[in-house]
Formats: sequence, structure tokens, C-alpha cells
Amino acid sequence: MQDKPGVLNRVAGLFRRRNFNIDSLVVGRSETPGISRMTFVVDGNARDVFQVQTQLDKLINITKIENVTDKPAIFRELALVKVAAGSANRHEVIQMAELHGAEIVDVTIDEMVVQMVAKPARVQSLIENLEHFGITEMVSTGVVALERAQRRVVGEPAPVAAQLNGSK
Amino acid sequence: MQDKPGVLNRVAGLFRRRNFNIDSLVVGRSETPGISRMTFVVDGNARDVFQVQTQLDKLINITKIENVTDKPAIFRELALVKVAAGSANRHEVIQMAELHGAEIVDVTIDEMVVQMVAKPARVQSLIENLEHFGITEMVSTGVVALERAQRRVVGEPAPVAAQLNGSK
Repeated sequence: MQDKPGVLNRVAGLFRRRNFNIDSLVVGRSETPGISRMTFVVDGNARDVFQVQTQLDKLINITKIENVTDKPAIFRELALVKVAAGSANRHEVIQMAELHGAEIVDVTIDEMVVQMVAKPARVQSLIENLEHFGITEMVSTGVVALERAQRRVVGEPAPVAAQLNGSK
Repeated sequence: MQDKPGVLNRVAGLFRRRNFNIDSLVVGRSETPGISRMTFVVDGNARDVFQVQTQLDKLINITKIENVTDKPAIFRELALVKVAAGSANRHEVIQMAELHGAEIVDVTIDEMVVQMVAKPARVQSLIENLEHFGITEMVSTGVVALERAQRRVVGEPAPVAAQLNGSK
């Protein structure tokens, strides 16, 4: 979407009017200055998703829409989880974090903050395991996705940003 | 914010009406079922930020607002960056990623995907360095923040989730 006033408002208004159930939503920069990338997860069947696409396509300042659900894409979620953990169970939390490929980014006498970036299912697994100790605070980005690098025949030209971001 | 229809729409409408310039925005789950956490970066001076807080405070289904700008918090951003890199410069991209504490999460004959989670300034540094090779596609979550674990005197009770999320 173009970085223009009112784009987020129009998208949110559409979600509201059509009663689309949005699980998570991220708006950040893209590879092109002046163009933001919004990634959202809509809870619904294939028909609902198709509806979202069709309706979004009618809004102005939206340059491209892609449904990556079944595409070969890299899906990632970032979570920061603050856990109640003192001397008695600190070691267990560290072990749980390590087993999930997560990191401890802050620690005090009775709390730890675990940072994890992975596929949503793996982040969910960590969270469920940390609930056992007591989660006092948590922030999650929801999912972002990037199509995998293209498997090409050697010698075929690589895509350029301009082609990937052609306006409608 | 409560997971109720129309909350995002009301917030986006407020941003639009007041012409708040939003750099990035993330809505994901929190530690409490039924409560989502929105993190956004507003481009403005202290007065603008105060205005945002005051106006948001009037909206329904918003349970708590916090300005973490100057608080002892953990700030993180996740970026997935697809870089044009073939046999001639693949090694250099790997080195650049390693020096930034980033990871290579996909690779083909002429592209690589670099994943980085760090403070926004460090993510920006990686992106600037990768631009040299050619960024073909990128997604960023923008910033999320979590207040650091509290430094407490031993024996003082730890906070519980209910206290941290008390509704207004």
C-alpha cells in the first residue's frame, strides 16, 4: 500500500463493514520507499479470503494483494514473553527456551524475558510450555510472510524490484 | 484492546481524523485471552504523542495505553530481506548477516533471504548494508516493545497478569 493518509483507515473500515475476523495485522516498510507492506491473518474459509482480496482490490492506494496461504513462503512470528521464574525454575525456563531455539533477552530475580522468532506453530508451542511457569506479559507481532526465493534455471534473469512492485 | 469488532476501525479512524503519522503498526495477541496488544510508532513530538494517548483513552474497548518511548523497554523488530546474491557475492552476504547477528533462512542460485530480529537501529543497519547487493523484496514488522523485567527487592511479591491488565 502507498504511504498515504487514510489507507489504514479504509482497510480497517472494510474489515469492519464486511465483518472479516482479523487474527493479526502488521504494517511495516517494504523494499520500496513510499510503499508499506501490510500482512494480516483473516480467520475464514477460502470463500471469505477470496472476498477479502476482491474487496481490497477496489480500494485506492493499494498496489498489490497476494494470498500466501498455500504459497511456498517463509512465515515468521516474533514474540517477547515475560515469564515468572526465580532461582527454583530459572534453569528450566532457559532449557525450554534453548529447546525451542529461543533466546533469553532479560532476567531479574523473579522474571525472565524470552524472545522467539519462528513459524507460528513453533512460537505457539513455546508459549504453551512457558504458561506452565506463568506468563506475566507478552507481545507478539502476528505473522509476516515472504515468498521463498525463486528456484530458477541458471542464466534466467533475476527479478527486479520494479517488476515485483508494479502498480495496478 | 479487547478483541471486539470495530476496535481497529475506531483506532485507524482516529489516526486519520487527527492526521497522526503512523510509521508502523502491529496487532497481535497478549498474555490475556480476548485482549490483543497493538504497538505503533507515531512520528511526532511529545505533544503529538500526548494527544494520541489522550484521544485513544476516549475510545471504547481500549483497556490500557502506555507510552514506552523513554521507558526501560525491550524494543524489537523482525525483518525478512530477500537479496540478489549469486556465487560471486553469496559469501559477502553471509558475512554481513553474521556480523549483524542475522540468519540466512533461504537460498537459491541467485537470491538469499536474510532474517533479522534486533533493535530497530540494528535492523536498519543491516538493511542499508544489504542494499548494496540489491534488495528484491522485504517485509518488516515494525517495532514491538515490552517493558523490561522489574528489578525488585528479593521477597517483594511479583506482579500477576491480572494486575498488569486491569481494565480502566
